Amino acid sequence: MSQTSSSSDFNARLIAVADDVELMLGQLLDEKAFFNEIHRPERLLEAMRYASLGGGKRLRPFLVMESARMLGASGQGVLRAACALEFVHCYSLVHDDLPAMDDDDLRRGRPTVHKAFDEAIAILAGDSLLTFAFDVMGDVPTHDNPAIRAELVVGLARASGLGGMAGGQALDLAAEASATPLAMEEILRLQAMKTGALLRFGVEAGAILGGASAAERQALVAYGLALGAAFQIADDILDATSDAATLGKQAGKDEGRNKATLVSVLGLEAARVRCADLVAEAEGALERFDSRADGLREAARFTMARKS
Amino acid sequence: MSQTSSSSDFNARLIAVADDVELMLGQLLDEKAFFNEIHRPERLLEAMRYASLGGGKRLRPFLVMESARMLGASGQGVLRAACALEFVHCYSLVHDDLPAMDDDDLRRGRPTVHKAFDEAIAILAGDSLLTFAFDVMGDVPTHDNPAIRAELVVGLARASGLGGMAGGQALDLAAEASATPLAMEEILRLQAMKTGALLRFGVEAGAILGGASAAERQALVAYGLALGAAFQIADDILDATSDAATLGKQAGKDEGRNKATLVSVLGLEAARVRCADLVAEAEGALERFDSRADGLREAARFTMARKS
Repeated sequence: MSQTSSSSDFNARLIAVADDVELMLGQLLDEKAFFNEIHRPERLLEAMRYASLGGGKRLRPFLVMESARMLGASGQGVLRAACALEFVHCYSLVHDDLPAMDDDDLRRGRPTVHKAFDEAIAILAGDSLLTFAFDVMGDVPTHDNPAIRAELVVGLARASGLGGMAGGQALDLAAEASATPLAMEEILRLQAMKTGALLRFGVEAGAILGGASAAERQALVAYGLALGAAFQIADDILDATSDAATLGKQAGKDEGRNKATLVSVLGLEAARVRCADLVAEAEGALERFDSRADGLREAARFTMARKS
Repeated sequence: MSQTSSSSDFNARLIAVADDVELMLGQLLDEKAFFNEIHRPERLLEAMRYASLGGGKRLRPFLVMESARMLGASGQGVLRAACALEFVHCYSLVHDDLPAMDDDDLRRGRPTVHKAFDEAIAILAGDSLLTFAFDVMGDVPTHDNPAIRAELVVGLARASGLGGMAGGQALDLAAEASATPLAMEEILRLQAMKTGALLRFGVEAGAILGGASAAERQALVAYGLALGAAFQIADDILDATSDAATLGKQAGKDEGRNKATLVSVLGLEAARVRCADLVAEAEGALERFDSRADGLREAARFTMARKS
């Protein structure tokens, strides 16, 4: 496997993409803001900005853009699609942090939206970010071909809803409330839905935008599935081993909640080994793309090595 | 203006459409439910069914189907689009009822979702219904032409989000918390967003599905705007004059919250006159369609005459 891109190249590219994403997220919200000069819901708009601007690694948008780029697609349309996915991620953080859900006060080192604003605005800001994601994804500037836009809309909805992220969060809350610990198989299923589905859709969106063949798309989905699983184990390891100052959010939450994770089931060391195996699996899934996929390979390694 | 359809024809048709919608909503949720045989989020799915099945006049779907029918479009695709809009309406009721929002315990004569389940499930059920709406709207069986599906997705998102329903709800909450009463212009703007946008989109969706000309679409939008405004005044009149047993939800809420409505600003009689004027305006906007639009005319009159 060739290694034309170094880890520092990758970090520079991740930061460059995050900058582009930040700019476009702000621009999209600005455009939206001017629909209505009189009697505008300013506080809602402010909460939407607060929830989506000023931070985050922007890993999901990176996956969209890097997989599209690998297949020869780039430009403002790809960036818009990447931002649509990021808006969904941002909405999910706002709603997951609510008192009735995970009840978190801190996110990216800042008060969560319901703390900085209030609960009603946090609910509405999440709703509006989710809704806006489909506006952005479905609209003409995202792609000339409406069939591509419609496919992206449906894919995003499936990754986000009952069968994906929201369903995974419901399973997670049910598991916390239950006296019976989850079986390994159930933990994996839950995590594949809760965090895996959006990450997997990131590369799938890149595949759709880049006009991937069926085989290419299948390879990218295999990569996305392994990456998503590795990402979640790394997250669970960080929760068990890091501190709030490094994470920018509360640490040790899983143990405090008696949450079943691969760390609690396998132990820390075996969880680390499994994470490394999944990263290798993710890299292996990209074989057919040769060195063009080095950015995605680095992303898989980054997933495991990240500190927050 | 011809009167080929009578009021009882209209009621029969409204009920027939509601039956079709109920069936399709259930069918769509069933299809979605089988994505995942192992470890399914059953309680979330149950809450989504509870929130969307078993009641409601289904006025928004009726507007989609009746305006599409008037333009010669019907069938399962139109019904799916109508159901996508209804899922958004159902999600909005679930979230609006939450303790942090309007804090309602009763809806359609039954406990609200967060009462029948819990707050976390209510938030997630709303999120998942909203997300599912875009899945249904964007997917192939809704229309052969992906440009139509993408246009419907974007229109639905705009009617539902910051510039529409969610933004209107944010303005409404801000007004309740404010010491300064809203000006008439602000009340109208708020209501056009909060309830008007989805009703207007109903006929617009019908126009898109029916391949309306620009002039036809403009006429339908004018109808939708007047209908939406009439609907909201009628709602405010019902809140002021009806009781919980008839409404299936708490009555007298507006006065209890010192909410500015056209009833509180104009008084009951002037509000009734204005409502009737808006219904006449809605009917007038349909002139170009002759008797083909009688169903929509009846819908406008129904809006004013309804008891719940």
